[in-house]
Amino acid sequence: MYKTFGFAGLGLMGGSFVKALRAFYRSRGEEILILALDNDVEALVEAKASGDIDEGASTNEAAALLSRCDIVFICLYPRSSIAFLIKHRADFKSGALVTDISGVKTELLKALPDILRDDIDFICGHPMAGSEKEGFMHADAAIFKGRNYIIMPLPSNKSENLHRFKELLISIGFERITETDFASHDHKIAFTSQLCHVIASALVDSAEDTEITAFGGGSYEDLTRIAMINAPLWTELFLANKEELLAHIAGFEASLTKFKTYILKSDEASLEAALRHVREKRIAMTRRETHIRMAHQ
Amino acid sequence: MYKTFGFAGLGLMGGSFVKALRAFYRSRGEEILILALDNDVEALVEAKASGDIDEGASTNEAAALLSRCDIVFICLYPRSSIAFLIKHRADFKSGALVTDISGVKTELLKALPDILRDDIDFICGHPMAGSEKEGFMHADAAIFKGRNYIIMPLPSNKSENLHRFKELLISIGFERITETDFASHDHKIAFTSQLCHVIASALVDSAEDTEITAFGGGSYEDLTRIAMINAPLWTELFLANKEELLAHIAGFEASLTKFKTYILKSDEASLEAALRHVREKRIAMTRRETHIRMAHQ
Repeated sequence: MYKTFGFAGLGLMGGSFVKALRAFYRSRGEEILILALDNDVEALVEAKASGDIDEGASTNEAAALLSRCDIVFICLYPRSSIAFLIKHRADFKSGALVTDISGVKTELLKALPDILRDDIDFICGHPMAGSEKEGFMHADAAIFKGRNYIIMPLPSNKSENLHRFKELLISIGFERITETDFASHDHKIAFTSQLCHVIASALVDSAEDTEITAFGGGSYEDLTRIAMINAPLWTELFLANKEELLAHIAGFEASLTKFKTYILKSDEASLEAALRHVREKRIAMTRRETHIRMAHQ
Repeated sequence: MYKTFGFAGLGLMGGSFVKALRAFYRSRGEEILILALDNDVEALVEAKASGDIDEGASTNEAAALLSRCDIVFICLYPRSSIAFLIKHRADFKSGALVTDISGVKTELLKALPDILRDDIDFICGHPMAGSEKEGFMHADAAIFKGRNYIIMPLPSNKSENLHRFKELLISIGFERITETDFASHDHKIAFTSQLCHVIASALVDSAEDTEITAFGGGSYEDLTRIAMINAPLWTELFLANKEELLAHIAGFEASLTKFKTYILKSDEASLEAALRHVREKRIAMTRRETHIRMAHQ
């Protein structure tokens, strides 16, 4: 298996991977080395003091560090991930597995010719996990528990590497791994993730004041928790996937208009029928989740 | 204090009140009598077998039962609550406290002349609590824990009754009681509750299929949990408060259009600034919550 793990980026996601990997290998009594690159010196110092990483360095020293790693997780923002992969193409250890976690893949797909090398295996992935909190200080292995992981295999990926990588993901808490292509990923994610963040943001934006939560019963709080958003990251994600996102916003607006029209016309029968349909559809989604969860146990 | 409690309606809400009251008085070693009216015989049998209620009867026998109660909770749908209060106006025990839990109050306000009696105290309330599950079988005292309760005092309400009622609500788990008027209630609730249910429903309605949750990371699931909606109840709530709800839908649509336009124009600076603003606003809501919670402890 892997002995030396490299991380480019030790924020919320990189930090959570580090903690999850450390915990898993400790529980098996196996020694691993975790090396991390980040320009936030405080995060490196904290991660070393807590024993989460063994060595930390700034990205200036990336070449020396990357050349030692059997597996490297690129946990930077989407554009920075692509830039890093291109810049350090020559620095990875021959035979290494390199993986990214970017939430949008179209740009990465275009850049692949400048990233791939015959002697490294690059696996494109996207952990469907996160938090409204940012940075290494909020990193937590628990955010991966029971979550989905999406992988977009490339024709060049070796099947034993894919298999081993998926085993590793399951080991650190992910529950279901879905394989898909780049276009499907960006299409689906624009709906389940980006559209939800836009809606939550609009719902907070349209609040008359911040005192409104005195009248909250949990729904508003649940719908807007993700509006405590990492603004630069989500700006990048929304714009990198704008065509797909705009199409889903339009679809959502059409559904909203349908409900609005029933209410406006006091069309009780159509409104109740539409809500019954929604209820059944949402329950079917839950049932599917539960079914898959039980099949895994 | 109160010795005999009456319930009109033993569904999710009535059942949860019954369980919460039973648990509270048991913990104090005090005996109370709980009498419930419901046309669902199974719910009555189940509630009696579990010791949650002492006696159950169908609404045909309401008069005899209501005449014994010191406090009566009307836990029916909004329209049925009003009809019940009018029909049984003469049946309440002199000196009793009667309270409702309807999510919309405008119609109730209009009906008050046909409901109020000089020798009973009617307190209009709205517990900001619930569940996507329905019926007595899902009743659970825990749904009230830490929640808001809204009360709309009437000029006729006696201050000692209001005080005692609020104490009772705090005893069974509610954390904050907000007093307001009928119009403000319907205005605020249309935003925090009804708008959220419309949005969640539209978000499920616009999903291409039910397999989409394989790509979920928690956001979609959190935003649409309340779409497992009680269709007849929410149809009634939406239509009873349609003017307020339509105004809030329009406000939300305007905010959504703002974000959509930034994305369409790839206006990175405006988009990021708007997301930063939303983040601060949502954090201020949380801070307010936490502040109030700590003041209560």
